[in-house]
Amino acid sequence: MTFPTPLTGVVPPVCTPLTPDREVDVPSLLRLVDHLVEGGVHGLFVLGSSSEAAYLTDRQRRLVVEAVAGHVAGRLPVLAGVIDMTTPRVLDHVRAVTAAGADAVVATAPFYARTHRAEIARHYRLIAAGSPVPVIAYDIPVSVHTKLPADVILDLAAEGALAGLKDSSGDLAGFREVVTGARGRPDVRGFSVLTGSELVVDAALAIGADGAVPGLANVDPHGYVRLDRLCRSGDWEGARSEQERLCALFGLVTVGDPERMGGGSSALGAFKAALHLRGIIDCPATAEPQVPLAPEEVERVGKYLALAGLL
Amino acid sequence: MTFPTPLTGVVPPVCTPLTPDREVDVPSLLRLVDHLVEGGVHGLFVLGSSSEAAYLTDRQRRLVVEAVAGHVAGRLPVLAGVIDMTTPRVLDHVRAVTAAGADAVVATAPFYARTHRAEIARHYRLIAAGSPVPVIAYDIPVSVHTKLPADVILDLAAEGALAGLKDSSGDLAGFREVVTGARGRPDVRGFSVLTGSELVVDAALAIGADGAVPGLANVDPHGYVRLDRLCRSGDWEGARSEQERLCALFGLVTVGDPERMGGGSSALGAFKAALHLRGIIDCPATAEPQVPLAPEEVERVGKYLALAGLL
Amino acid sequence: MTFPTPLTGVVPPVCTPLTPDREVDVPSLLRLVDHLVEGGVHGLFVLGSSSEAAYLTDRQRRLVVEAVAGHVAGRLPVLAGVIDMTTPRVLDHVRAVTAAGADAVVATAPFYARTHRAEIARHYRLIAAGSPVPVIAYDIPVSVHTKLPADVILDLAAEGALAGLKDSSGDLAGFREVVTGARGRPDVRGFSVLTGSELVVDAALAIGADGAVPGLANVDPHGYVRLDRLCRSGDWEGARSEQERLCALFGLVTVGDPERMGGGSSALGAFKAALHLRGIIDCPATAEPQVPLAPEEVERVGKYLALAGLL
Amino acid sequence: MTFPTPLTGVVPPVCTPLTPDREVDVPSLLRLVDHLVEGGVHGLFVLGSSSEAAYLTDRQRRLVVEAVAGHVAGRLPVLAGVIDMTTPRVLDHVRAVTAAGADAVVATAPFYARTHRAEIARHYRLIAAGSPVPVIAYDIPVSVHTKLPADVILDLAAEGALAGLKDSSGDLAGFREVVTGARGRPDVRGFSVLTGSELVVDAALAIGADGAVPGLANVDPHGYVRLDRLCRSGDWEGARSEQERLCALFGLVTVGDPERMGGGSSALGAFKAALHLRGIIDCPATAEPQVPLAPEEVERVGKYLALAGLL
Repeated sequence: MTFPTPLTGVVPPVCTPLTPDREVDVPSLLRLVDHLVEGGVHGLFVLGSSSEAAYLTDRQRRLVVEAVAGHVAGRLPVLAGVIDMTTPRVLDHVRAVTAAGADAVVATAPFYARTHRAEIARHYRLIAAGSPVPVIAYDIPVSVHTKLPADVILDLAAEGALAGLKDSSGDLAGFREVVTGARGRPDVRGFSVLTGSELVVDAALAIGADGAVPGLANVDPHGYVRLDRLCRSGDWEGARSEQERLCALFGLVTVGDPERMGGGSSALGAFKAALHLRGIIDCPATAEPQVPLAPEEVERVGKYLALAGLL
Repeated sequence: MTFPTPLTGVVPPVCTPLTPDREVDVPSLLRLVDHLVEGGVHGLFVLGSSSEAAYLTDRQRRLVVEAVAGHVAGRLPVLAGVIDMTTPRVLDHVRAVTAAGADAVVATAPFYARTHRAEIARHYRLIAAGSPVPVIAYDIPVSVHTKLPADVILDLAAEGALAGLKDSSGDLAGFREVVTGARGRPDVRGFSVLTGSELVVDAALAIGADGAVPGLANVDPHGYVRLDRLCRSGDWEGARSEQERLCALFGLVTVGDPERMGGGSSALGAFKAALHLRGIIDCPATAEPQVPLAPEEVERVGKYLALAGLL
Repeated sequence: MTFPTPLTGVVPPVCTPLTPDREVDVPSLLRLVDHLVEGGVHGLFVLGSSSEAAYLTDRQRRLVVEAVAGHVAGRLPVLAGVIDMTTPRVLDHVRAVTAAGADAVVATAPFYARTHRAEIARHYRLIAAGSPVPVIAYDIPVSVHTKLPADVILDLAAEGALAGLKDSSGDLAGFREVVTGARGRPDVRGFSVLTGSELVVDAALAIGADGAVPGLANVDPHGYVRLDRLCRSGDWEGARSEQERLCALFGLVTVGDPERMGGGSSALGAFKAALHLRGIIDCPATAEPQVPLAPEEVERVGKYLALAGLL
Repeated sequence: MTFPTPLTGVVPPVCTPLTPDREVDVPSLLRLVDHLVEGGVHGLFVLGSSSEAAYLTDRQRRLVVEAVAGHVAGRLPVLAGVIDMTTPRVLDHVRAVTAAGADAVVATAPFYARTHRAEIARHYRLIAAGSPVPVIAYDIPVSVHTKLPADVILDLAAEGALAGLKDSSGDLAGFREVVTGARGRPDVRGFSVLTGSELVVDAALAIGADGAVPGLANVDPHGYVRLDRLCRSGDWEGARSEQERLCALFGLVTVGDPERMGGGSSALGAFKAALHLRGIIDCPATAEPQVPLAPEEVERVGKYLALAGLL
């Protein structure tokens, strides 16, 4: 499909259901896609961090994009992560995911390698030059240990190298600088500024963001679509109330015992446990080497769902 | 070849020469290997950080291992990095590099994904279970943003999951804990403890390390081999003097202007410029998106070489 | 005066004007206080980070509190920072600033010393036990390198150990957790949740914050008071517009050359240069070892003021 | 006394014994000093991090220096920490500790305030200008969150602003740069380079350090003095063996339960518990808000002492 300029609304980073032996569970994946589309989302982001892209092999990544792009068949835009360490490796992923049907690619700053603002700009320029589809920058310091500078992003937007930003930095003031810059600079047009937050989507939209990419929208797409609509209609009181309900639900990411596992195992395990409890996916397994939730931790996920009216 | 237990001596992380259009320059790579072998090194580590592994595509990585392993033909052990984000992706690299002839694999902790000590242990156990050759842990917090805990390493050594450690953490006290533990624990046998430092190899060997994996040994293998011999013979005064000469030479990594490029571009650019100036490789290009050294910066590399008696 | 429960509105961290030889310039300080009071602010926070509390000697700190509390004479609440490394030293400051007339004290987590959530809780309980006035927690990870956990804050609020929070962490999602918790927990009453941000005050108030403590309010108190009123009246469009004007003005903190000085020298130097250019203080000097702005940097401050309609 | 140029040997950071109600226990402090002097140490460093300087009030700090300097009466040099956030506050401490008899002062980089290399240099120049005794730089990134750059230290040494460095950074390669620079630069004379490590004193002395400032020397001064002598005599094998005994003893810093307390509470609590168990101080209390060791944790300290032959 033609990529919207700018992309707006709710674009969930789609979880990747796995079988018990850690293969991509395509039927569950497509059920999840249907659940999201039926929930009213405005786009799909596969192979993001919440999709466990970092854990999927190249073969599995390709399979995910082919399955989802084929199934969606142009009904809404499919963005695909091309998460890898540096430009040459990212370009390999760009080739693979666009051949598989992605409508846009989403790329982080270089990681593992130490990096520099000049190298980040060079990285995105080369990706843009090598990509047949729009490129979205993915700002996720917790994973890549670099914050994308607002002025670099805006310059790349003005050049046409970037079509948007997904900001998972948690820094709303920095995010605002991009939002305001993208609106205020005459040389920046159709640039999409998306928050990766689950918890301050109302605030992000209030300051002018185009949309949101919340991992929790896997579990409750209807809630985030409702929140998006309330914001767009200017009902800030209603938006805040919906957002607070979603914040309470987000507490499920903390169910995992920090003595036994990391925050990632807990959060991704809880998302998948919730999808499993809601009957959307067949198996809640997460990829290796993540530690699985214990039965009593899964039970606590169920309580969060019940409190949010989702069970 | 049979992997030595433990591996000892100087094992340079072999630079990956590139052509001007960023393809692997195999003839230059083999000349570099000959230069290192002739310098007396005890093993070769391809696809490490100094090899720009983070910048090489899977195809290029395979090509490097095939070329080097084929050329070396069992004369000395070839270790290959399997640097990637998580277990499933690392296991794909294990299959590729061992098929291409690697005698051991070198794996970091998970990165990009947030991680936890239980997940790190699980990661290495799964890699060991899937690898036909010995597994060496690579501790490089500057890249993966996690420090490998000494007790986790020693437990994995005792289980036989790990055959060694390459420590590029810069933390000599933590390194000593592994060295002393590996020697003191009766359940740990043949475990190889290697420092990744260029600058305190004498100190590392003095406290009991088995060897060193210094990037600068690409430029001056004879120096590091001499240093290793002086240490083994107990000539600590001579060792210190040789080490200080190498420390002065290492200053070449700072030639790049920090306004214009990151520390990685400067260091890897300087190693390659030095190899080019010494006539060993045909082209000093580094992989994208690294920023190339300017001519006057290359000139300063030459001065470092001259001062060290290498030009 | 009786401390309001909760404290609401705009509470600027008052800059500390210095003479050219770095003594507290009391007449300038009182003119600044008058400027803020006349601007309509709802409280004053002396000895905060923007007050250069970290640079003032104990004698100077006492002088500041005495001068401001005496001058204000109960017209509005005066909060005083008690910024020091650990509990015993903070308690000494509590004694000094309350003797000098402070209506509340503002304390950070321990710093310099490594710390732990149990030690943070113990720290605040001991300060509360030793303070004759309400205690406000100051969350400023950029300075103390610890983030105050939301649940610890809320438990201390429920116990009555804390009367409020000033959050300068930049983490709006974490801030929201305290705001929502403080409103939702029946055991927490009259707790004041204040943002330390200059840039997202509209968003903070929209999600339920009680007020703001923006350093930039020294320069433009009228702007922040206007912003606060627009938010309280539900005019979010107007609030956003006023906030964006203030965001543009905040650009003045970047005038200092990063080659020559740190971000603190630049920001505090710019605040004081602005106050000097506006004729409110006699001398723009900052405390040692901060690097002074160059004349052309001060000129750029003037341009920011002119664009914001303040010159 | 005349301060030695350079200062060499073992200079313990002297613990500050407290009474059960957290007052300085002067009789215990003087017994500890006698224990250290009898152990053969070459100087005393009061008000360092291991002295809990961050937790002592100004009155307590003065009392410590007066008591120790008076008791030592010139038999060996007494260095005093002047640990505070910025130059003006540090200068107040310089006045206090030199009036109380300190032979040298030990100052960190600015902290709490964000800082910059130019500001660090300015800080030390101003301290040197205001101090009647030699100034030693204290590099402790774990506390101040800045690493002192080697070139800045060496330039300040050449100017005469600094008389030495205590390096608690854990970065032996950076330490070596200062050691080699201080010996190699003709403009640097009598500069004392001291390691703050407990665990690699042998390595530090082997690369040319002048001495060590190990917190653990409170517990076992004889061991560190022996280690220093073995190194100076070139008996590196004997030195390594003594160092490894001390490394094993140092394990006592880990006795505290990380669920219940931070690493500082555990380490300082263990040092004091060891001094108490050895009969040197009357009470093992640490300053607030540190969490005390539990009885079974103290018991484990005893086991470490027994294994090291100290009970």
